[in-house]
Amino acid sequence: MNKTDRGTTKATVIAIGDELLAGFVVNNNAAYISAELARVGIKTARQLVVGDDAGEITAAVETARSVGALVVCTGGLGPTPDDVTLDAVAKYFGRELVLHRPTLEEIERHFARRKVPMPEVNVGQAMVPASAKVLANPIGTAPGVILEDGGFVCFLLPGVPDEMEVILARGILPFLVERGLTGEGVFTRTLRITGISESGLYELVSDIPIPGDIALGYYPHAGEILLRFSGRSTDEVTFNELTEHIVAEFRGKLEHLLYGEGDDPIGRVLGELLRGNGKTLAAAESCTGGLLGKVLTDVPGSSDYFLGSAVTYSNEAKVEVLGVKPETLETYGAVSEETAAEMAEGARRVFGADYAVAITGVAGPGGGTPAKPVGTVCFGLCRSAGTLTFTDSYLGDRRRIRRRATVRAMGLVRLDLLGVLVGDSKEG
Amino acid sequence: MNKTDRGTTKATVIAIGDELLAGFVVNNNAAYISAELARVGIKTARQLVVGDDAGEITAAVETARSVGALVVCTGGLGPTPDDVTLDAVAKYFGRELVLHRPTLEEIERHFARRKVPMPEVNVGQAMVPASAKVLANPIGTAPGVILEDGGFVCFLLPGVPDEMEVILARGILPFLVERGLTGEGVFTRTLRITGISESGLYELVSDIPIPGDIALGYYPHAGEILLRFSGRSTDEVTFNELTEHIVAEFRGKLEHLLYGEGDDPIGRVLGELLRGNGKTLAAAESCTGGLLGKVLTDVPGSSDYFLGSAVTYSNEAKVEVLGVKPETLETYGAVSEETAAEMAEGARRVFGADYAVAITGVAGPGGGTPAKPVGTVCFGLCRSAGTLTFTDSYLGDRRRIRRRATVRAMGLVRLDLLGVLVGDSKEG
Repeated sequence: MNKTDRGTTKATVIAIGDELLAGFVVNNNAAYISAELARVGIKTARQLVVGDDAGEITAAVETARSVGALVVCTGGLGPTPDDVTLDAVAKYFGRELVLHRPTLEEIERHFARRKVPMPEVNVGQAMVPASAKVLANPIGTAPGVILEDGGFVCFLLPGVPDEMEVILARGILPFLVERGLTGEGVFTRTLRITGISESGLYELVSDIPIPGDIALGYYPHAGEILLRFSGRSTDEVTFNELTEHIVAEFRGKLEHLLYGEGDDPIGRVLGELLRGNGKTLAAAESCTGGLLGKVLTDVPGSSDYFLGSAVTYSNEAKVEVLGVKPETLETYGAVSEETAAEMAEGARRVFGADYAVAITGVAGPGGGTPAKPVGTVCFGLCRSAGTLTFTDSYLGDRRRIRRRATVRAMGLVRLDLLGVLVGDSKEG
Repeated sequence: MNKTDRGTTKATVIAIGDELLAGFVVNNNAAYISAELARVGIKTARQLVVGDDAGEITAAVETARSVGALVVCTGGLGPTPDDVTLDAVAKYFGRELVLHRPTLEEIERHFARRKVPMPEVNVGQAMVPASAKVLANPIGTAPGVILEDGGFVCFLLPGVPDEMEVILARGILPFLVERGLTGEGVFTRTLRITGISESGLYELVSDIPIPGDIALGYYPHAGEILLRFSGRSTDEVTFNELTEHIVAEFRGKLEHLLYGEGDDPIGRVLGELLRGNGKTLAAAESCTGGLLGKVLTDVPGSSDYFLGSAVTYSNEAKVEVLGVKPETLETYGAVSEETAAEMAEGARRVFGADYAVAITGVAGPGGGTPAKPVGTVCFGLCRSAGTLTFTDSYLGDRRRIRRRATVRAMGLVRLDLLGVLVGDSKEG
């Protein structure tokens, strides 16, 4: 990345909360805020965490002022007395707290909608520093606040991630643009890869030359790897033009290992592929317990192609709901390609889908045997051309095994839709 | 927490890395280090993140020196030229970098074990500040370093989490004990609450007196609130004795709003309750798409009581799999208490379960109507005594609405098992 950064607005991100200093809570908010600022060309020069203490908070804001023109504070705006951010920052700027009537009305509406009387303590959340700009919180009670003093701009945001994110997007980023504080952004392009290990990927692509002003990062994550190119540019179109020839080389080497580009997770990519082919999908899940359905339906509009999932956690449910034969379960066990095949066939029939994918495995920590240790997962894929089965073996804990199995199941459907499903398959 | 903290060693945690300031990477290391320090009675007064820049690093160490006697730095010790932590900190302490022969031998052995020639660039990792204490890294190449100057102690740790953790445990915590810098640890107790807003909870319990040496924090999270008591004590048993009378008062006020204590999420608590009552549970999910099944099966051993979930995302699947009447869907819509009731009844029958809970709602962003806006979620609960239905209304995005609905569904089953399910219910 360009280290000179001439003319770039520098920001400090301050997260406030005893729970962060105690290590109870990980500071996800700082990473989120810094990434959003980077997108509009604002460089985070420092991140700070201080406790719910007025002296600490004002000291942090004072430090931030010496670093750059912007400070984004998050946390400590709750209704309870342990939250002191608003008081401390108002005092630092020499402002009184005054009642902001529109905010009070919004808070009252918030409780009215939920048919709950408003506790008296919430009135305090409508008290804001005099002549501050107030940013509505559409999903909670603590508004965002903008304070300015001689070119120094201080933003206060709630610490609840959803609330912080929506106020940042709707209130703060537009304000920064309006004020001309944004600049050449750091732009990124992401290639999304599945079906190869990180070191395998490195060996495959490491001879592709990368220009010095482009940074390349590898971010492996539960059966997927994100390859991220980043660099400064005036806008996204220019950055994309600048990186197009490199990305084209990667595409050529990666072929179908590259399942997507940008922010689209595999569930969304698979969904678009199903939609484009006019096909519907159903699932049958055992060890993933609904995770596959959850991931597929994380995508708004997924009802266009996803019909449902039969989460058959018990053997009886596999028989009753999906029509798996009791003999199959008895002879081969619940974790077997034979059971996976019948689960997929049952799901395709019950939901009337074009494609059905089934997952049955040992997610652990218990249930492993020498023949089928924890991490053994069988898959069935049923479509008009017949049923295919696969067995994978994963390392890691329950969470990781379930996530990898879910990604793999979606990958199987994708490869079959592309007509490139090959490998350790056999007719089920 | 005791805000005076007389005699307590205060620490600053500094994480170093451009990737943190760019928001690509979340600062998990700071939370981990702070939690480990708290266990041995060392309070983190501040966390800082700075970039891979010598000036920024020395400024951060200088700030840390004004805060307390200890600073723990993590990151920027890699072999590549962008890592400058060692150089910067050595200069700050006025020390030359000298070759540490045992470390070089260790790095050489590290590469020999992997049968890979040692790249020349790794020799730099054996250069340490003169008269520093060097802490072996058993799983990587960058050692830990301890520098001291007039009572100020500075630790340098690699940024790779596994390597940081092992050096902290084997090198730094024993050093702190040996030097007498540790004290009474900070211990915590957590009460887990659902079915009330944060401010409603505050009104309910705010008149319970809390001793000055016990800190109380509220941590709301998607339909649940964690109440966390923390304070100093010699050990966990003593802390639990010390807080027992306060916790007893909270238990008395909270009654069934308190669903658990400690680390057990509601899915696990509900599971234990089902197991204890010898009851089985099935689910029928529409808008949550499998999330309820996923959360219930996050718990190892959940197959003892959880039979499965019918994720019926399409109307056809609701009819085919669960036997919902087409007239019901036509007359009342998929998001209605009538449909929720029939979904629950169908799931109970299909899975042969004692309890079945159904969720159908508008998770958004599309699909809302004036009568049933985004966030409207209907629930059905079916058991031998009959079927109950409920309607809730949530704010927020798709993810938040789905999480709240999942927590609520588990809460309904729990309350019914406890025999205290009351409120806006009606026979379905």
